[in-house]
Amino acid sequence: MIGGSGPIGVFDSGVGGLTVLRALRSALPAEEFIYLGDTARLPYGTKSPESVVRYSLQCAEALIVRGISCLVVACNTASASALGALRLRYPDIPVIGVIEPGAAAAVAASRSRHIAVIGTEGTIGGGAYQTAIHRLDGGIRVTARACSLFVAMAEEGWTEGPIAEAVARRYLEPIFGTADGAPYGTPNGTPYGAPDTLVLGCTHFPVLAAAIRTVLPPRVAIVDSAATVAAAVSRELARTIHTQGSGGVTWLATDGAARFARVSSVFLGQALRADEIEIVDL
Amino acid sequence: MIGGSGPIGVFDSGVGGLTVLRALRSALPAEEFIYLGDTARLPYGTKSPESVVRYSLQCAEALIVRGISCLVVACNTASASALGALRLRYPDIPVIGVIEPGAAAAVAASRSRHIAVIGTEGTIGGGAYQTAIHRLDGGIRVTARACSLFVAMAEEGWTEGPIAEAVARRYLEPIFGTADGAPYGTPNGTPYGAPDTLVLGCTHFPVLAAAIRTVLPPRVAIVDSAATVAAAVSRELARTIHTQGSGGVTWLATDGAARFARVSSVFLGQALRADEIEIVDL
Repeated sequence: MIGGSGPIGVFDSGVGGLTVLRALRSALPAEEFIYLGDTARLPYGTKSPESVVRYSLQCAEALIVRGISCLVVACNTASASALGALRLRYPDIPVIGVIEPGAAAAVAASRSRHIAVIGTEGTIGGGAYQTAIHRLDGGIRVTARACSLFVAMAEEGWTEGPIAEAVARRYLEPIFGTADGAPYGTPNGTPYGAPDTLVLGCTHFPVLAAAIRTVLPPRVAIVDSAATVAAAVSRELARTIHTQGSGGVTWLATDGAARFARVSSVFLGQALRADEIEIVDL
Repeated sequence: MIGGSGPIGVFDSGVGGLTVLRALRSALPAEEFIYLGDTARLPYGTKSPESVVRYSLQCAEALIVRGISCLVVACNTASASALGALRLRYPDIPVIGVIEPGAAAAVAASRSRHIAVIGTEGTIGGGAYQTAIHRLDGGIRVTARACSLFVAMAEEGWTEGPIAEAVARRYLEPIFGTADGAPYGTPNGTPYGAPDTLVLGCTHFPVLAAAIRTVLPPRVAIVDSAATVAAAVSRELARTIHTQGSGGVTWLATDGAARFARVSSVFLGQALRADEIEIVDL
């Protein structure tokens, strides 16, 4: 555990952050985790920044009182709006969001210096990835697009097949051109500086990565925010003295244990039972 | 105005109820309306019944203090869970939900005595249409299915074209068979008692009616909850003494005026400006 004896706390607006938890458990198999899904108030993506900050502080407090030693904000919308407020409120523990690691991985991956970012309306409209990328390299061009339908498709479990690919094509072809490399509306050749990196800027999207891959030109690298945040937490952990736990997870949600358990399998790759999930009131 | 001098209050979890408001204004062009979209807490469809009752009472109170004389619950999830609590709290004004009028219209329309209902997870899982239909006629068979993706598609404005039709086909073909009349998995003929009526049990769905129509066999009648609730309010109004207003609407939302204004045009058939929408705190 990081900088103390408590578990790693992870919160999200719902089940999407389970892709981050899955990556964390894979990277840090002996750590203890507490996962909180604020299912009573999902999605954060369409809420105002003020509401998202308030919700995030409430989620964090529920984890802090359970003795966490590190806070992972496994929600792009909350990372975009609330990271500053959370670090101010809890200066003594590391607070790690998903935006900064994803932005850094994208900047490292791009050769064309043109990065595309997809996410919810809140993440994209707030410009958080654009800001984080430009903080690292002001000369990089960023093309951003909200892909709201991907969230519903992921939760429905429609993660592959013709509909998933058609939706991915409708969102992504205007950015990348067709999968055979011809840019959209320009039949021949790839223009200099076309985007060569796609950031999956919503924790729901990694489960759609295979369908997204089918509509992208081969030159495009996909940056998965779940994998990049797990790597960032591992680096943080390597810097600090920590003792290890038994790899268990405590499951918390603010509403709907049955739905949480059912939908979670898509994101977690493991079935939960509703009675494993404790409902908490924030 | 109904049973008093105030406007008609309409609330929904977000913008979907604007299809109901649109039908109400069309049926009652001289009435005054107040519309409240609880956009800070949408969607209700994935929340627990207890949360939906609490939110609905807060929405109703915000309208009552503005002097409404009739309350329209333009949200299937809230109608399913909160109508009893609302009628108990406000016994002096008519409280009209969208479930009962839709159920009655479906029972009147069906000849095969087999009705299909689609809606959000909350509406379908709660069994409200099934209960309302069986209260009218216990011998009718009801087939229900949650169609979560339709909500996101409607809000994205993807209401027609190949993706809308492919999604409609994936949800509806297992219920109705193919559009040429052959039941799913049974190549020849229509079985006795196949559903001949489809209730659009979510206020988002009327904007997808044309796409839904293309995948249904011609025998199937579509019951639109927005139109049926407008007819129910008109009947209620005809029973009571009322004075008429100037046909205006006061717009309230709990979050995100800019998004409300932008998305509303799909459902309302009319563009709103963000500065026309007052943000209220419940």
